[in-house]
Amino acid sequence: MSRFLNEKYQKLDAYTPGEQPQDKSYIKLNTNESPYPPSGGVISAVNETEIKNLRLYSDPESARLKTALAKLYNTEAENIFVSNGSDDILNFAFMAYGSNGVIFPDITYGFYSVFAELHGIPTTVIPLNEDFTVNTSAFMGKNKLIVIANPNAPTGIALSLEVIEEIIKSNPDSIVLIDEAYVDFGAESCASLTEKYDNLLCVQTFSKSRSMAGARLGFAIAGKEIIADLEKIKYSTNPYNINRLTQVAGIAAVTDNDYYTENCKKIIQTREYVTKELEALGFRVLDSKANFVFAKSNKISGMALYEALKEKGALVRHFDKPRICEYNRITIGSRKEMEIFIEKVKEILGEL
Amino acid sequence: MSRFLNEKYQKLDAYTPGEQPQDKSYIKLNTNESPYPPSGGVISAVNETEIKNLRLYSDPESARLKTALAKLYNTEAENIFVSNGSDDILNFAFMAYGSNGVIFPDITYGFYSVFAELHGIPTTVIPLNEDFTVNTSAFMGKNKLIVIANPNAPTGIALSLEVIEEIIKSNPDSIVLIDEAYVDFGAESCASLTEKYDNLLCVQTFSKSRSMAGARLGFAIAGKEIIADLEKIKYSTNPYNINRLTQVAGIAAVTDNDYYTENCKKIIQTREYVTKELEALGFRVLDSKANFVFAKSNKISGMALYEALKEKGALVRHFDKPRICEYNRITIGSRKEMEIFIEKVKEILGEL
Repeated sequence: MSRFLNEKYQKLDAYTPGEQPQDKSYIKLNTNESPYPPSGGVISAVNETEIKNLRLYSDPESARLKTALAKLYNTEAENIFVSNGSDDILNFAFMAYGSNGVIFPDITYGFYSVFAELHGIPTTVIPLNEDFTVNTSAFMGKNKLIVIANPNAPTGIALSLEVIEEIIKSNPDSIVLIDEAYVDFGAESCASLTEKYDNLLCVQTFSKSRSMAGARLGFAIAGKEIIADLEKIKYSTNPYNINRLTQVAGIAAVTDNDYYTENCKKIIQTREYVTKELEALGFRVLDSKANFVFAKSNKISGMALYEALKEKGALVRHFDKPRICEYNRITIGSRKEMEIFIEKVKEILGEL
Repeated sequence: MSRFLNEKYQKLDAYTPGEQPQDKSYIKLNTNESPYPPSGGVISAVNETEIKNLRLYSDPESARLKTALAKLYNTEAENIFVSNGSDDILNFAFMAYGSNGVIFPDITYGFYSVFAELHGIPTTVIPLNEDFTVNTSAFMGKNKLIVIANPNAPTGIALSLEVIEEIIKSNPDSIVLIDEAYVDFGAESCASLTEKYDNLLCVQTFSKSRSMAGARLGFAIAGKEIIADLEKIKYSTNPYNINRLTQVAGIAAVTDNDYYTENCKKIIQTREYVTKELEALGFRVLDSKANFVFAKSNKISGMALYEALKEKGALVRHFDKPRICEYNRITIGSRKEMEIFIEKVKEILGEL
């Protein structure tokens, strides 16, 4: 840190991304990436003509991409916001709507508390229930920015659309942000509710179900006025924030939607397989609607399992935090990767 | 705007990017893009393997890219910061170092005032001298964040390294940010001074001299502590903010540095040609060290020339602002584009 840094950022506790060790080749089950490559359409969209066009700025309005997304989600381009990953959108939303304070669960995506700290937003943290479900009654009638990941991370547990709608209705004077990064793996999206409620902001990403984590593309669906707010902040920070290749890749991915829907089905099937296998080995596995499971063993501590798996070449994500330190978050890879993973778990348990 | 938007952003006057009309094909001389495509190395670096790898997150540390840049600029990777375009870096720098206020010229890159407003930073604006040079004495001993584009935009006029060093020395307790977006077209970079001064932040971009405006890649060179500050803010907003393809393209562009150096030479030659031609037509052309010229006619108003050029299929940038409304900023395209441009100007003047 330099002696010049603004005092308000000096104690900032930045986000820690999942580790990316380079010492050997791992089965990478720690950052919820898709085991499947982008669709053929994406691969042909990023062609030599487009690469040569990198000399030209990207379209700051991302007009074609918004039109494609609007068609898929049965809405208008003016109801779509796109940005450089959904983290970017979350950051803008905290800026735009956090002035009365923000409220989110104690166990959820770790970045929410970082955004709150970055922007000096007073934070109310609502502990999850004993069974790791969201304590939804605590989010009713709060008049603060409400942020809920659905399905939640790292638990994978989803809320029903009915409950989400109750929360939206009970907070008519504040924004309800539903972070649907993992929604395509079995939960219900609130996208359609954005027509009905002017305080709902539905945030999604191309990183998980659309196999484009490395392209950085997030989007939001909301009423036109919310979208206009987010555009204003984007145009005041970084108008050209989505590069050309990501824009053409994004359009192609939307066109190839069926391919990704099939991949999600396969991931769901593999998730059921992993859940059953882990349960047979004595694990408690939370009911996941995401592309990961959150599980704890009755035989080995969360940290010890994480370390033993890493030693054996499988990376999972361990959070050394109260309430969840006995668990590990395990991304659902390909069937083959997960068979190897289960073998490794069996070996580890056998060596105890 | 929604009824929920944070009061402090309601009156925000966002940045206006250069127009991108789609009604017909233009000679595009309005956003300072390079007329030359990215190098062959960039085109082969963005290959099918890399596109398939989009399913994986990009390296948030951009380690290989930083190492390549450090080698080129004769420094260490710890002295390099990379981000999603140099606008992103400017935004972070205003956040990190603006708390005592910021000082920049009245006529300069239009985004500085937007960042100041966005972050509520008190701003001191120093009018350029009559001849459009920076009034450097007004930047001495200020103890505020100092922001100077060198060469300046839209004038193209550069400061000498000696004067830059005087400004750095006279402000030992505040950051001096030198925005070198256009430095490769004939001005002197302050990069080497970052070894000597812990308050200097040198910001550059791949958008202009490296033909990668559409890839979004900016970088900064500074002391390690400044770089650590910027990383802290990046990791608190959007750690994965540079996508995979831009990272590999950036590494290849650094490797192919000679190709870009040659392109810069060609652009400088074309700039001399355009300057001479415009002067012969009665224009006042400021002494540019950038990939554009800023020029006013003694026969036609700035706005009228801009409009007549647009009508004839050539886009330049006009700023409807005091002191400079008689000028137009004309990007230096290829020799052929500029010959056509000069022909169009002659036609317009002939029609008066």
